[in-house]
Amino acid sequence: MKHAVLGTGMVGTTIATKLVEKGHEVRMGSRDATSEKASAWAKKAGSRASQGSFADAAAFGEVVWNCTKGEGSLAALKAAGAANLKGKLLLDVSNPLDFSKGMPPSLFVSNTDSLGEQIQRAFPEAKVVKTLNTLNCVLMVEPGKLAGGDHDVFVCGNDAGAKERATAILKGDFGWKRVIDLGDVTQSRGTESWLALWIRLYGALGTGDFNLKIVR
Amino acid sequence: MKHAVLGTGMVGTTIATKLVEKGHEVRMGSRDATSEKASAWAKKAGSRASQGSFADAAAFGEVVWNCTKGEGSLAALKAAGAANLKGKLLLDVSNPLDFSKGMPPSLFVSNTDSLGEQIQRAFPEAKVVKTLNTLNCVLMVEPGKLAGGDHDVFVCGNDAGAKERATAILKGDFGWKRVIDLGDVTQSRGTESWLALWIRLYGALGTGDFNLKIVR
Repeated sequence: MKHAVLGTGMVGTTIATKLVEKGHEVRMGSRDATSEKASAWAKKAGSRASQGSFADAAAFGEVVWNCTKGEGSLAALKAAGAANLKGKLLLDVSNPLDFSKGMPPSLFVSNTDSLGEQIQRAFPEAKVVKTLNTLNCVLMVEPGKLAGGDHDVFVCGNDAGAKERATAILKGDFGWKRVIDLGDVTQSRGTESWLALWIRLYGALGTGDFNLKIVR
Repeated sequence: MKHAVLGTGMVGTTIATKLVEKGHEVRMGSRDATSEKASAWAKKAGSRASQGSFADAAAFGEVVWNCTKGEGSLAALKAAGAANLKGKLLLDVSNPLDFSKGMPPSLFVSNTDSLGEQIQRAFPEAKVVKTLNTLNCVLMVEPGKLAGGDHDVFVCGNDAGAKERATAILKGDFGWKRVIDLGDVTQSRGTESWLALWIRLYGALGTGDFNLKIVR
């Protein structure tokens, strides 16, 4: 399958690399079509990897991943272009972290709204599925590294078919065993709010190599 | 030990009953010193149980539990009286749930502040430890009911000794095996924000009989 990965940071490169390893064609998109980071990634990742502008990548992908920083996500997706997102599964991995008020970060949207919802409202014809924003990127694509994968990840979004496709990628490509469907895209408020606890656990535990398991 | 339990709802009665069962003397406090609910509880719970006003209870307790609804917590503690809270361990189990904007509830304070902090600021001489606000009250006092207790609860607060005493109660009286110290009282922002995910899991799973385990 053809994937667009928007964002050249750790999350974007980790997800893009994993997708290439799993046999997908991946175009990494960045603000600057000649991004050095994206070029270096594409060169290293091999023949199924390419790079271009946000719009180049989004036009290429059948599936689009938003791996940009939360504060830049709406602008990045606008640059990608609504027409290039139309009808596509848009996997939103971003978090609305606000580092401007000191550490640990707060959220620039929360409680009665969420970044996932902002993105869905801004791009009503995209099929937004919020997922993987609840843990570090190494574990996103290698859940088996932790307790044999015996922990949870979430999906939420308004389109049932899009969530099924997202879940198939999570399970089939990344090896997730436990995927909880929380409901529509407003449930992003829940998974984005979890970051407020995640960052404090990161501080208390001294590592980001953890995840939550919902014990029933 | 003498415990004050402020609040006559499910959380208060569940915790108060458990403390009596464990051999503690417990006075339940309510807004109305002649509360029918508190009287009925005290009658049923036996000779170590009593009831009175918020101030009666707080004066009685060596340890004070805030089990009131979040929206009424500051008023309840004001009625209890700063002098009656001074120097005492104040276990804050409340959550700042706001039901006024429809379901699921949002939080009336979050992100850059928390109810735990508001309480600590309002009663600077009390030793606030935020705990147990992350799960339902049946599991608060019987964690072993779920997966043999193999899941987590948190403490946070500014006073190390108060957190040690809180942890001793959680482990010794309630049977918790896993207690994570998140740090100072500002970490309440994390555990209160978790409610935004908890309530959505409650909706998705159709039960409140779950908890999170931090998998490392």
